Amino acid sequence: MLKNRILAEKPQEDELKLRLKKAREKLAAQQMRIKEHKLPVLVLLEGWGTSGKGSTIGQVIQNIDPRFFKVASLESIREEDKRKPFFWRYFTEIPEAGKFVFMDSGWMDEVTRDRLMGVMDEETYEQRIAGIRRFERQLRDNGYLLMKFFLHISEKEQKRRIRLLKNDIDTRWRVSEGDRWQNQHYEKCLEIFDRYLDATDAPSIPWYVVDAKSRKWAELQVLETLTEGIEIAMQNQSLAVPVLQNVFPLVKMPKLSEVSLEGKTLEEEEYKDELKKLQSHLGELHNRLYRKRIPVVIAYEGWDAAGKGGNIRRITEALDPRGFEVHPIASPEPREKARHYLWRFFMRLPRTGHIAIFDRTWYGRVMVERLEGFCSENDWKRAYNEINEFEKELSDWGAVIIKFWVHIDKKTQLERFTLRQNTPEKQWKITEEDWRNREKWEAYEGAVNEMIKKTSTVYAPWHILESVDKKYARIQALKIVIEELEKVL
Amino acid sequence: MLKNRILAEKPQEDELKLRLKKAREKLAAQQMRIKEHKLPVLVLLEGWGTSGKGSTIGQVIQNIDPRFFKVASLESIREEDKRKPFFWRYFTEIPEAGKFVFMDSGWMDEVTRDRLMGVMDEETYEQRIAGIRRFERQLRDNGYLLMKFFLHISEKEQKRRIRLLKNDIDTRWRVSEGDRWQNQHYEKCLEIFDRYLDATDAPSIPWYVVDAKSRKWAELQVLETLTEGIEIAMQNQSLAVPVLQNVFPLVKMPKLSEVSLEGKTLEEEEYKDELKKLQSHLGELHNRLYRKRIPVVIAYEGWDAAGKGGNIRRITEALDPRGFEVHPIASPEPREKARHYLWRFFMRLPRTGHIAIFDRTWYGRVMVERLEGFCSENDWKRAYNEINEFEKELSDWGAVIIKFWVHIDKKTQLERFTLRQNTPEKQWKITEEDWRNREKWEAYEGAVNEMIKKTSTVYAPWHILESVDKKYARIQALKIVIEELEKVL
Repeated sequence: MLKNRILAEKPQEDELKLRLKKAREKLAAQQMRIKEHKLPVLVLLEGWGTSGKGSTIGQVIQNIDPRFFKVASLESIREEDKRKPFFWRYFTEIPEAGKFVFMDSGWMDEVTRDRLMGVMDEETYEQRIAGIRRFERQLRDNGYLLMKFFLHISEKEQKRRIRLLKNDIDTRWRVSEGDRWQNQHYEKCLEIFDRYLDATDAPSIPWYVVDAKSRKWAELQVLETLTEGIEIAMQNQSLAVPVLQNVFPLVKMPKLSEVSLEGKTLEEEEYKDELKKLQSHLGELHNRLYRKRIPVVIAYEGWDAAGKGGNIRRITEALDPRGFEVHPIASPEPREKARHYLWRFFMRLPRTGHIAIFDRTWYGRVMVERLEGFCSENDWKRAYNEINEFEKELSDWGAVIIKFWVHIDKKTQLERFTLRQNTPEKQWKITEEDWRNREKWEAYEGAVNEMIKKTSTVYAPWHILESVDKKYARIQALKIVIEELEKVL
Repeated sequence: MLKNRILAEKPQEDELKLRLKKAREKLAAQQMRIKEHKLPVLVLLEGWGTSGKGSTIGQVIQNIDPRFFKVASLESIREEDKRKPFFWRYFTEIPEAGKFVFMDSGWMDEVTRDRLMGVMDEETYEQRIAGIRRFERQLRDNGYLLMKFFLHISEKEQKRRIRLLKNDIDTRWRVSEGDRWQNQHYEKCLEIFDRYLDATDAPSIPWYVVDAKSRKWAELQVLETLTEGIEIAMQNQSLAVPVLQNVFPLVKMPKLSEVSLEGKTLEEEEYKDELKKLQSHLGELHNRLYRKRIPVVIAYEGWDAAGKGGNIRRITEALDPRGFEVHPIASPEPREKARHYLWRFFMRLPRTGHIAIFDRTWYGRVMVERLEGFCSENDWKRAYNEINEFEKELSDWGAVIIKFWVHIDKKTQLERFTLRQNTPEKQWKITEEDWRNREKWEAYEGAVNEMIKKTSTVYAPWHILESVDKKYARIQALKIVIEELEKVL
């Protein structure tokens, strides 16, 4: 792609100036329309060291009101980043609807660098490329405009720039060890870059290779391509995209109606004994998890009044408070709503060695959002695959993923609702909405069945907790968590 | 993709029947809406021999009114096909807006078969794959819904089917030599198929792998996926798509204003001498072309009254009438308008060894269609690349492509218009529209400059014919045609 890509020829100085002026004005005019269209724009600038990524961004943003953009400089990886999944530091930086984010180097830089340095083997590389293709597709499928630029300069030009920068005491700091290394291994880098660009070029998310020999000319190419991309994206309001076939191995799961709730009970004494034993065991495992730096994600979904809260508490009681967080998930805040629906969950992922427990989860997409019409049909139909991909990313990172559906029958729910309503200190736990949701029990049951069927992957299967007797369900949950953790310890 | 693709599990008989009924009704209901939405639907069924492609199509079409679909069975390549470019037999079969075409095997079958038989080397294969990706993207970018299915069966199942078919005298004919060969080389085929599917899977044009072990189940998978794909496509009216960066080497061309028309004249006598000599030479070359089976495409564009007709005549006078066709291009007919804008030109391509001369061409897209608003901005901006891709396909096929812009100045046009108007036997040559177009001279000049700049690829550059003196232009045209032909003879 770099080798045989034909770049546009640099125009004469007069034409260049004229076109720059026009393109700058166009971008300036677009910013308000982007806001109106609620279009999130992610501009990724990759390229050779000293190709001028930073200065190009510096030029481009001068046409945008500072309230509308952010520049994310991700070249250096912080200690914190290393304890998160690969995409974490990129995903957390994605723009909200109506705004720009410019990234000065992104996931291409990280992957190709690791590959060049030989710290990433072929298999991991292939896995990463597959993950990147999914990530970019998900952004686009969820309404993002992702513009990918690669700033290209020749070996000679790079050498010249490095020399120039080094000869001046004021700019010497701008030449990195990496830049020098690249120049010494230019051909090898070219090959790796080329392969990456080929592998991640898609009809809907293409690469643009920029001739970066002249700064102004590079700026013009980025500006013209960007403004054109924005025009096109604004024409495609609420794009519907193909629902992809599942590619992840699934575990066969029963329908909720096939799950027997009969006799799943525990005597008080047995419960207490078991609880003590299991919690103490879990506590030990938590230490070992921490030392082995294994991240754990526990996801709770279930019927209203099924007993999620109490169940979660029996888990957390066993854990070292410095090593876990519980995330109660309510409806999204404006800044969350303005982004990819998985963003708020990405933001809450644990560090390696930590446990994150989600009280309600990303599965809201295929339950409440589906049934209440908070997203389009295309959105929720696509979500099963998107969620499987998200969890695959976590699993590839090394995370243990445990998903619980806390299950009761309709009659039990009514009893608990009534009890809550009639008990002053429990009344806060029951709302009008709970009663409304209860009326849609059958619709929810259908959605839950579809969800469990389509998202019980081998790396993140659902576990159904029979919770007519809450004590039984708690012991079950503890046993499952322990069992899953022991598999990796 | 075949090896690790997880296929949905076949449901119980009752559920299967119920879902089949629903999916059939859905498709039946969709056909009228497809017509209203003017959506063209191309359903491609690829897969193993004896996997039931034909019978699946047979089932699916029972839900569609025969006026709305066509089945194209392309498994055998006719003699005629071999004298056309690779995509010809597929492109000519694409559906018109609002209709279905089902293809029982298509370009995947052809390419993988050639690869398996060892008649296609790695380089040609790569070239073919690149061409296929472009072809599929172009269809989709131009509003086509392309649904790609691969019907998958195991080696054992294929063996069983072949045996069953062979044992019955009525079905014996259905087992081909190719089916048996496939089964004997199942692993090798699997690898080639897998590689092809991977290379041609795109976010916007994905593959669907169908578990074809049971006929009814295969039908259901195709029906459900197809109807879902149709729903999604109908939501995307007039999709705008990214304008891709040029990847083809370009020849640097002057702007029209930089082309001097001064002194480009010929004396009558010199003209006659040259004409005779050149035409006789071209006649000889035509014979050699025919014997070497080289196809030639000559494209004429130019200002009204620039002298295209007379110029073309001086070429054809030299040719054997059995070996060329002239295609005057007017506005598209309804059946042409209802298809990809390049379709009508594909239909008129020459056979190998023949010459096709186009009086006006596919460049109408970026001139009259652009300026008169007959297509969207996204359409004509994308067209430069689409046309370069189209001509690349012709060039890869081995065609010589010669493109003429017949050039005069505005003053000369006025003189000729006036002469036509005032000469009774020439009045038919001048219309109101010509005068209207003349008023837009400057806009056309801008569009022509952009066209010449962006589509003068090394394999199909433009030639500007200075035609203030028509005789001069005719001699120039003959010289250029001869020169281009001699390069390949």
